[in-house]
Amino acid sequence: MANTFTATLNRVISSGLLHHIDRTVMMRGWLYKVRKMGGLAFVVLRDRGGLVQMVIDKKDEMDKLEGLYNGTVMRVEGKVKAEPRAPGGVELFDTKITVEVPVAHVPPVEVDKKFEHKPETLETLFDHKVVMLRNMREQAIFRIQAEVKEGLRRYLKSQDFVEFNSPKLLPGATEGGAEVFKLDYFGQEATLAQSAQFYKQIMVGVFERAFEINPTYRAEPSATTRHMSEFMHIDAEMGFVEFEELLQLVATMVNSTVEYTWASASEGLGVWQAKKPVLPASYPALSLEKIHALYSEKNPDDTRGEKDLRPDEERFICEYSAKHLGSEAVFVVDWPRDGAKFYHRHKADDPNIFERFDLLFRGVEIATGSMREHRYDKLCEQLKTMAGGDPDSEGFRHYMSAFKYGMPPHGGFGMGLERLTQKIIGLSNVKEAALFPRDMNRLAP
Amino acid sequence: MANTFTATLNRVISSGLLHHIDRTVMMRGWLYKVRKMGGLAFVVLRDRGGLVQMVIDKKDEMDKLEGLYNGTVMRVEGKVKAEPRAPGGVELFDTKITVEVPVAHVPPVEVDKKFEHKPETLETLFDHKVVMLRNMREQAIFRIQAEVKEGLRRYLKSQDFVEFNSPKLLPGATEGGAEVFKLDYFGQEATLAQSAQFYKQIMVGVFERAFEINPTYRAEPSATTRHMSEFMHIDAEMGFVEFEELLQLVATMVNSTVEYTWASASEGLGVWQAKKPVLPASYPALSLEKIHALYSEKNPDDTRGEKDLRPDEERFICEYSAKHLGSEAVFVVDWPRDGAKFYHRHKADDPNIFERFDLLFRGVEIATGSMREHRYDKLCEQLKTMAGGDPDSEGFRHYMSAFKYGMPPHGGFGMGLERLTQKIIGLSNVKEAALFPRDMNRLAP
Repeated sequence: MANTFTATLNRVISSGLLHHIDRTVMMRGWLYKVRKMGGLAFVVLRDRGGLVQMVIDKKDEMDKLEGLYNGTVMRVEGKVKAEPRAPGGVELFDTKITVEVPVAHVPPVEVDKKFEHKPETLETLFDHKVVMLRNMREQAIFRIQAEVKEGLRRYLKSQDFVEFNSPKLLPGATEGGAEVFKLDYFGQEATLAQSAQFYKQIMVGVFERAFEINPTYRAEPSATTRHMSEFMHIDAEMGFVEFEELLQLVATMVNSTVEYTWASASEGLGVWQAKKPVLPASYPALSLEKIHALYSEKNPDDTRGEKDLRPDEERFICEYSAKHLGSEAVFVVDWPRDGAKFYHRHKADDPNIFERFDLLFRGVEIATGSMREHRYDKLCEQLKTMAGGDPDSEGFRHYMSAFKYGMPPHGGFGMGLERLTQKIIGLSNVKEAALFPRDMNRLAP
Repeated sequence: MANTFTATLNRVISSGLLHHIDRTVMMRGWLYKVRKMGGLAFVVLRDRGGLVQMVIDKKDEMDKLEGLYNGTVMRVEGKVKAEPRAPGGVELFDTKITVEVPVAHVPPVEVDKKFEHKPETLETLFDHKVVMLRNMREQAIFRIQAEVKEGLRRYLKSQDFVEFNSPKLLPGATEGGAEVFKLDYFGQEATLAQSAQFYKQIMVGVFERAFEINPTYRAEPSATTRHMSEFMHIDAEMGFVEFEELLQLVATMVNSTVEYTWASASEGLGVWQAKKPVLPASYPALSLEKIHALYSEKNPDDTRGEKDLRPDEERFICEYSAKHLGSEAVFVVDWPRDGAKFYHRHKADDPNIFERFDLLFRGVEIATGSMREHRYDKLCEQLKTMAGGDPDSEGFRHYMSAFKYGMPPHGGFGMGLERLTQKIIGLSNVKEAALFPRDMNRLAP
């Protein structure tokens, strides 16, 4: 039907209407809402710029939308008037509506209404995501996420990190440990990457500083508010640094990304009443032992974690940090040998304390990182003793060759884009920050 | 060893040396090359900024590198002197070398030498990619690719496209057709996405203009110079447009990306002697039939393709376009019903001609796109008659719900990042433009 128009006016997007006050414009978009009051109809049109309200007082114009529902595609000509109380500061009058694509079916969810995100309603949201994303509040999550991703990328590029893309189809599990998805790859077994760990270290030998933001897969047989089987991972690694510099880079990156997001996604953050996080220039760093001690002091009857933090401890120490240390983000440092990976580096003066960190933010771990052992002989030894691996085996020889031919001291981190987005907005489940989430029970839409 | 330094000088990166002429600086990086002439040694250091040459005339300094190979990590203090004939326009004198990480093993490939990319040497290159990427010419490919990706993203964002991330784990083949990888997903069968086709169309209903750049998987049981089983796909889709606008957007995007890349990756493009492509503001568009006719005229004895172009026809028409139409890029339009997908839209006045395009560039298809059928009833019919699908089935109902609840006329395209990079640089095999390529015979490194 679009082809039959004689387009005499160029299309104007709702976000640009303020430049057209008192002029007649042509718009195209979706019917979002109809409200009738007396002899008037207030019809809201949605386009990529947002919403605009039309005030219709002619019966034959109102009749055009009779029996049609949210999503109806239409073309509208109308006169723009300033109206400070209306969304966007303008309204359209004297409108002439042309229905381009009528929607005669009642949508399965109320697209124009606020959807309450509660634990018991999330599955309904996910089931109807295709249509529900047309709701301005729902789509705001992913407009914000696009800016978070851009903010991270801009910061890393500003620090000379080169963006790369490593393969997600691997001959075996990269690191072992977490569960992996297996597939048939032309007759041999392949796995889906759980992280870019080996590749990002290899890229230190090439670019010195490198990052990628790509999907990552974990066959987690658990349905929690913190896990998904597919998520976007920021994998970054840098050479010629020590532990303190790595922590500072991560803090500056998060701070820079928060500033960028608040500057570029303010509208969406406002819709969600997101509170800008309190983040100092450098974040407090507490040892695992210190956190256990603080937690035990407050909860004498509770058994504390040993080699890791439990979710309740993560929440506790974040509250503690926000209250006493002036930071909603806190590093957990000084990790024991138990739980360390073979590629982690221990402190020069203590083989039992590893230079690892978790970054906790608003109650959840959003990133993990560490210094890596960069000396070939030492790494060979750790691979053998800590992981039972053979440096010359098919699974390790490519990775090990980076070290055999010279690697500097280096460290890096992995960060979950959805977890960061979740905590920036204030969502209670990480799946709310995934466009089409995947967990052990969900593979569609 | 790094920990034992008393760092009195801040590290300077080679690309910044021109700001330090006649000063003493501290640098860190990898040993790249050693050349001895008479009583002098010319030692080249590599860091993330590039290369710098040190001129060493003291025997005890030279001795420090005795028996050490390319990749040795070192710290150098020296005095910067301007030397227009040296790489980067400077040299280091009076150097004091400290070996941080010695490399005592002879590298398996000559990292400091130009590696000849020939069909018969590529597997060797891929086998030793971890080390070979340290060669300046090899890593330039991926520095260029990072800028190509950034150029594409910047252009799309400038046109209001919102970046999204759709899942790559799917309940079934998105479109059928090409081979898919299958995996066990917590007891049910899942497939790896062959494209973001359904999701990008769904996102038109949300953002109107949307794109993603993410890995895509094709279980192609063929080892050619054009195919990989994993590649980076630019998937973009836009609403409220017609075919001509879609073609123009793609042309402007490619032109804009070429300009961006030539501005930001000029050094790497110079290393590869890349020729800036001749691309007009709008690209010529030839019908499939016209191309077949032109080819048959030149090759009367050759059987021409029927519903698609053969590789030799693609090369032929690109040469024709460059020679006669002033463009190294050419659109192939007016495709027959045979070969069309159910979601393609045919011309309003001819049900046998579909509004699809291939974009050919320098002899190869780098993108395909089309207008999509946006009317629910018509799409249901095409799904049934052209693909034997059921709109209400589990596999299609989410996708179809986007149309049931209102979709505008829209179109989009998919473009391969590696193919675009390959053709911009002038590489002969798409795998040369993948950091760690994957095909039916290769799953490592």
